[in-house]
Amino acid sequence: MIFSKDSKATSWVEGANGSDFSIQNLPYGVFSHGGSSRRVGVAIGQRVVDLSVLHGAGLFAGTPVAGENVFACDALNDFMALGVDAWRGVRRRLVALLAAESSNDAAGKVVEVDSTLRDDAGLQAKAMVPLGDVTTHIPSHVGNFVDFYSSKEHATNIGSMFRDPSNPLLPNWVHIPIGYNGRSSSVVVGGTDIVRPCGQTKADDADAPTFGPCRLLDIELEMGFFTGKANALGTPIPASNAPDHIFGMGLVNDWSARDIQKWEYVPLGPFLGKSFATSVSPWVVSLDALAPFRVDQPVQEPDVLPYLRVDGDWGFDINLQVDLKSAKMNEAMTICRTNFKYMYWTIVQQLVHQTSNGTNVAPGDLYGSGTVSGPTPDSYGSLMEICWKGTKPLKLPTGEERKFLADGDTVTLSGVCNAHNFKVGFGEVAGTILPARAC
Amino acid sequence: MIFSKDSKATSWVEGANGSDFSIQNLPYGVFSHGGSSRRVGVAIGQRVVDLSVLHGAGLFAGTPVAGENVFACDALNDFMALGVDAWRGVRRRLVALLAAESSNDAAGKVVEVDSTLRDDAGLQAKAMVPLGDVTTHIPSHVGNFVDFYSSKEHATNIGSMFRDPSNPLLPNWVHIPIGYNGRSSSVVVGGTDIVRPCGQTKADDADAPTFGPCRLLDIELEMGFFTGKANALGTPIPASNAPDHIFGMGLVNDWSARDIQKWEYVPLGPFLGKSFATSVSPWVVSLDALAPFRVDQPVQEPDVLPYLRVDGDWGFDINLQVDLKSAKMNEAMTICRTNFKYMYWTIVQQLVHQTSNGTNVAPGDLYGSGTVSGPTPDSYGSLMEICWKGTKPLKLPTGEERKFLADGDTVTLSGVCNAHNFKVGFGEVAGTILPARAC
Repeated sequence: MIFSKDSKATSWVEGANGSDFSIQNLPYGVFSHGGSSRRVGVAIGQRVVDLSVLHGAGLFAGTPVAGENVFACDALNDFMALGVDAWRGVRRRLVALLAAESSNDAAGKVVEVDSTLRDDAGLQAKAMVPLGDVTTHIPSHVGNFVDFYSSKEHATNIGSMFRDPSNPLLPNWVHIPIGYNGRSSSVVVGGTDIVRPCGQTKADDADAPTFGPCRLLDIELEMGFFTGKANALGTPIPASNAPDHIFGMGLVNDWSARDIQKWEYVPLGPFLGKSFATSVSPWVVSLDALAPFRVDQPVQEPDVLPYLRVDGDWGFDINLQVDLKSAKMNEAMTICRTNFKYMYWTIVQQLVHQTSNGTNVAPGDLYGSGTVSGPTPDSYGSLMEICWKGTKPLKLPTGEERKFLADGDTVTLSGVCNAHNFKVGFGEVAGTILPARAC
Repeated sequence: MIFSKDSKATSWVEGANGSDFSIQNLPYGVFSHGGSSRRVGVAIGQRVVDLSVLHGAGLFAGTPVAGENVFACDALNDFMALGVDAWRGVRRRLVALLAAESSNDAAGKVVEVDSTLRDDAGLQAKAMVPLGDVTTHIPSHVGNFVDFYSSKEHATNIGSMFRDPSNPLLPNWVHIPIGYNGRSSSVVVGGTDIVRPCGQTKADDADAPTFGPCRLLDIELEMGFFTGKANALGTPIPASNAPDHIFGMGLVNDWSARDIQKWEYVPLGPFLGKSFATSVSPWVVSLDALAPFRVDQPVQEPDVLPYLRVDGDWGFDINLQVDLKSAKMNEAMTICRTNFKYMYWTIVQQLVHQTSNGTNVAPGDLYGSGTVSGPTPDSYGSLMEICWKGTKPLKLPTGEERKFLADGDTVTLSGVCNAHNFKVGFGEVAGTILPARAC
């Protein structure tokens, strides 16, 4: 179900109201606790609701997932594969179980409260785990990871630094949601430590390359969407079908070894400069939870080709933030505040383009947005841009300086949508840099 | 077990001796027949041996796969994950069951014949299916597909055509096995028809791009290796461990839409120009079967960095061939004869480089070699090179001309290693071009 932006609905669950994980949100993730197997849950307030337990208790009777327990799984893929009607049926049921009172959806339809869970302390004890007690895992088996390059500000910054400030965008950029295939095996859940990679690099003034620890380790603040239903190979997905094929969104940190990338990437693109790790947030926010925050995308000029013309407001007003904390700092410092609404190419255009040649998507695929940079230096989504190729180092409160990441640094991305009476938050995706292994 | 190149071992199975699928070969694949589920088999002569049936009959007792039936699977991944000791134990057992007489391995160790299968007509009826009756499937779930660019002749040809004939190789090429992440979801088994993709292209003299069917559809003759054991994220694989991590090799046709690729690929590399389909051969030849055909790789000059210095002869003497048959032709015409021994970068260097930044490989990953081109025009592995950017069209016996592929064309890649008394063949990987869908 879709709440309106004016929704005043509340939940009876501790800590839910006013939090990132409100009744209007209900993000999905995979967790374990106390040595349990992995299972699917929904975060609300300070609790994770174990959907596999609710399913076992018969609480999804009458919904499209009443049959097989798709939540007693180590990944969301099976649920993602079902499509939007199943997701909506489950969401409506969860709202009924978790809301404090009956409420209206955006279409005016009433969702009656079901007090089964609220009134059953025994079931709550089994099904509602304190958020602080769970271990979160990667939300899906990511079969295919694609990373786009869809922020005009970011592409312009990079083009200005490395090509021509007076003509920074390549000619294809305004016609194509440029992207490339990333490495799916090294997509990890937020909280995973990141080992500084080794690799081959060549200084501009050196005769030959050398091999050693990356010296220019960077972040990329991104979001990503997870795919829902599969399509058959050879069958493009039209924009009108996007709601069945896009399950939801999460935060993505596309860790980047700039020195490795620079030496290797011509002519076939980024490879080992990116493939050592990509972090995703543990909680995936559904498109229906994000619906109140849809906004128009930036004007696309020149006009895009007809296959990329997508009706509707497919931008999203999501506030994004990057925090950096060195090993010496007591608390993190915010180094970027930006918004997903700046993205030039929308997630639907990305999906339509990606499949326009017949490529098949699989449930649980991850499609990264590319670095989200805004119009001003404090809204740039990578250290490369924030420190402008190392020419404007960040001053940390400890007196330290940063042009790129140092060992021991922790980077945390967070994101939240703000309505008048509620928030829909993504939580965070964090990672701490560990020293390189001997190489 | 490893046969020497002088092996005279024979098999009692019909059609095996002198064929691609000899007792010295025993390639693995996944097949179904008569409505059965998918299972793992080995091709020999005109038969496929159903390993799941042999396992069920207890014939792998005493081998490392005696426990769970890893052959009653729809993919080779579980078997691939076990590592080289398990693969060798199974290979030795299969040789014992399928050889006509006891034989010596390359180390002089005797492999005694076991006549259990040969003498049991009932078991043969269940376990040995005519090759012509089976449906072959993709050998593994390909979690990650990487495509390298490891032929110096190919890279030189492309650089000569599109950059500078006097300086065709980019500076990094002789230092790095250049590669990129490909699309794993669209890796298909040989025999699958290929729908001509649609996509965005721009003519050099046009003001704006257009969207429509690819006009410059090409092949790339490649081989690929499938990975065995996984490594942990953050832990590079040293060359000495390669035998545990490389299961075997197959033929790969990396279908390429040159016009889509040309417009999209700067700066992040090939994307939709490649992702619509990649074909692999149904039969995977193990590294032990290929061992008699190992040869020195070409001299690498300048010296590679220490992490890429790999001892041993990791080139392979594999004769490769491309056949083209238009819809009007009665029989196919050979348009390329080349050899895998020309490859500048070896599969072990590719694996070591790929994991040098800590990237984790998974069992069943596919690593394509890049186009295999030899030194002469009749040994080039793509139409782009054979027809030199369309300037030297192929004349077909029907009077037709080809610069790139036309609808109805069938392309077949094949590969074989020749010893004095036996062959180790890869069979073939074929694909027929279907017209584009309305786009």
